Amino acid sequence: MTRSPAPPAPEKHIAESTVRRLSLYLRVLEQAAARGQQTLSSDALAEDGGTTSAQVRKDLSFFGSFGKRGRGYDVAELVSQISDILGLGREWKVYIVGAGKIGAALVSYRGFSQRGFRVLGVYDNNPQIVGRMIDGVGVRSMSQLEHDAAREMPDIAVITVPAEHAQTVAELVVSAGIRAIMNFAPAPIHVPSTVTVKSVNMALELEGLAYALVHRDANAS
Amino acid sequence: MTRSPAPPAPEKHIAESTVRRLSLYLRVLEQAAARGQQTLSSDALAEDGGTTSAQVRKDLSFFGSFGKRGRGYDVAELVSQISDILGLGREWKVYIVGAGKIGAALVSYRGFSQRGFRVLGVYDNNPQIVGRMIDGVGVRSMSQLEHDAAREMPDIAVITVPAEHAQTVAELVVSAGIRAIMNFAPAPIHVPSTVTVKSVNMALELEGLAYALVHRDANAS
Repeated sequence: MTRSPAPPAPEKHIAESTVRRLSLYLRVLEQAAARGQQTLSSDALAEDGGTTSAQVRKDLSFFGSFGKRGRGYDVAELVSQISDILGLGREWKVYIVGAGKIGAALVSYRGFSQRGFRVLGVYDNNPQIVGRMIDGVGVRSMSQLEHDAAREMPDIAVITVPAEHAQTVAELVVSAGIRAIMNFAPAPIHVPSTVTVKSVNMALELEGLAYALVHRDANAS
Repeated sequence: MTRSPAPPAPEKHIAESTVRRLSLYLRVLEQAAARGQQTLSSDALAEDGGTTSAQVRKDLSFFGSFGKRGRGYDVAELVSQISDILGLGREWKVYIVGAGKIGAALVSYRGFSQRGFRVLGVYDNNPQIVGRMIDGVGVRSMSQLEHDAAREMPDIAVITVPAEHAQTVAELVVSAGIRAIMNFAPAPIHVPSTVTVKSVNMALELEGLAYALVHRDANAS
């Protein structure tokens, strides 16, 4: 099934924030590779990743020893190692559940395919749009999801339905055997602890900005 | 300019994670109000907000005293207080920069307008689409952004351009006087410390899921 060797299994629990920074480091390293750089200092990696070089060294130390003192990191080697750590050396099969505007935009999002995330199908319960194609991906009926999943074994479900349907859809994808969910619906979902959920809530992010604007203004006045 | 009294200014620095939970509590409270509930216990608020009741009490204590021991929180009162804290009692003017699929999906995203975020314009540098309307909002030329901003005084810019243009666009909106940015481009942007940035990177979130899947599988085998 996998196209790369098993990634090194870290011995301790790795915080979500560390995994996030590893993703950022990977982007910085890939940009350096695109510029033709062969090595990168932890200072440069930290600056472009928005953190400190001490943090970079700490993050990478969880997974073993990388780089040589005074010579920086080998860009190609570290790209490969971080990709393996993040599980990016293989293809991940994705269902998008909800064929509204956000769902449709995600089907076309190049950032997914570039990282090996392949969208197999988009599900909706609106008979008016079932059967249409979005950027080469068919819109399938929600009632087929469990049946399709038994055959295709998707790894990840991206939920892009309205808030009031999020929990029902989450239960559907969990009972279809999907163990990783990215939730775009503006509502928390409850799933068994064997299922990993990440939530992306754009209104929440905007509210965080509003809070910063209000309280910065208050402090400044 | 504002339609509500100034929010209480907290005396200490409030962590981003606290602000995030306040947004979640607000949603839970609004759902309770929609069901006709007048009070809500901190246990109920915690469960639906995905946290503990001790955390709920701690989060709310930053801002003063809410609720009565043994009687729970007054739903309407707490909705109003959290809305004020988050700066949601007023309208926030938003520019979306980048009229691609994600930008267009965001124009139509009801979660924004429901919270008082009003999209005044969508900017793009593709002359083929400048002048079109997306859900009642006009696509404007990027070259007009500074000029428009001087007149309209937008509060927030949402950047939805490709990664390679993100920094240039960030500098443009900062020089136009916008002090809050939501960055959807899959690249970090560098701005002065007087500008608040929140990043939403969907590929990063998917990578976090991939990491969880790989390492859960590795641990389980």
